[in-house]
Amino acid sequence: MKLYDGGRAPNPRRVRIFLAEKGITVPLAEVDIAKREHKSAAFTTLNPLQRVPTLLLDDGAVISESIAICRYFEAVQPAPALFGRSALEQARVEMWQRRLEFELLGAVAAVFRHTHPFMVELEVPQVAAWGEANRAKVESFLGLLDRHLADHEFAAGDSFSVADITGLVAVDFMRLPKLPMPAGLYHVQRWHAAVSRRPSATA
Amino acid sequence: MKLYDGGRAPNPRRVRIFLAEKGITVPLAEVDIAKREHKSAAFTTLNPLQRVPTLLLDDGAVISESIAICRYFEAVQPAPALFGRSALEQARVEMWQRRLEFELLGAVAAVFRHTHPFMVELEVPQVAAWGEANRAKVESFLGLLDRHLADHEFAAGDSFSVADITGLVAVDFMRLPKLPMPAGLYHVQRWHAAVSRRPSATA
Repeated sequence: MKLYDGGRAPNPRRVRIFLAEKGITVPLAEVDIAKREHKSAAFTTLNPLQRVPTLLLDDGAVISESIAICRYFEAVQPAPALFGRSALEQARVEMWQRRLEFELLGAVAAVFRHTHPFMVELEVPQVAAWGEANRAKVESFLGLLDRHLADHEFAAGDSFSVADITGLVAVDFMRLPKLPMPAGLYHVQRWHAAVSRRPSATA
Repeated sequence: MKLYDGGRAPNPRRVRIFLAEKGITVPLAEVDIAKREHKSAAFTTLNPLQRVPTLLLDDGAVISESIAICRYFEAVQPAPALFGRSALEQARVEMWQRRLEFELLGAVAAVFRHTHPFMVELEVPQVAAWGEANRAKVESFLGLLDRHLADHEFAAGDSFSVADITGLVAVDFMRLPKLPMPAGLYHVQRWHAAVSRRPSATA
């Protein structure tokens, strides 16, 4: 088994944190995005979408998409449960994982990919107006998240889950396009500090 | 239990097809998007993101996000399995569900939301250049999907899954922004015809 990893990029970090929470060690193969190694012919054979992380299993099967890789390990080793246990828990984790991925991580990524000089050759075409439009989406969703976290310890309720991993990575990723944390979001700050203190956060 | 539905919009249809495949009947409450009923105060209390579909359970719990609603019903009634059974199947379904959702349904939706006159007041700001940029993404992903379906009966392998539902809805949604099906994609056409013939497709 081998996990094709992408260093500091947010999606590879999501999977590394997930594995750290599970206590699972997987051999990593570094893919240097700055050197466009994810665009090579060899890597494209593994993942035609040319993205990391990508998991290669011992029988040659390939799984890409961060959350698909996480689900593989959740099924192989269910404890600790990071996708919920009961039907309602599973649905709540999925709902908040998706909200945090689309409304926050996706919006932060859109600002970065469409406005940052580093991405000129990787995001074609860069549409600056689309990047700028996502700044308001980030701020709006963080306000909604703050109201939610006023009544909930973690993103999906009482237990730490994969939704918190996506949220943590998204908030930390805001630094790259220099997105400010809006003032007064005390519940987001409390939650972010708590999940950042977990040993997995350094993965 | 009540499912707040949105008529012809693609995400409500995804959940209706899923329920039809499971043979589950849920009372529907129609939300008229054209009349902005999803922006009402009452609906915003249920789902602060103001989107359909949204599921209200008998104990007052609310689940939004189409795939989260589908996962709730998969956990409540596992057969027929639409999210895979083994760890590898579950991961493959998740991988292809996400690819079809982000690379195809999301790209078609971006073309529609950012270029169609109907969306001027619902998608603020409309960024026409972003809508146009997604035309190439749709065409590129359909080519990749065709090569994949040359060796696989369904999107995630040998069995019909939620990934096929997302794919069917995405291809049908191409009609709205008048996106053409590229010529020569015989495997996509074979697959689309097969999943369209299932009784669930009319849901």
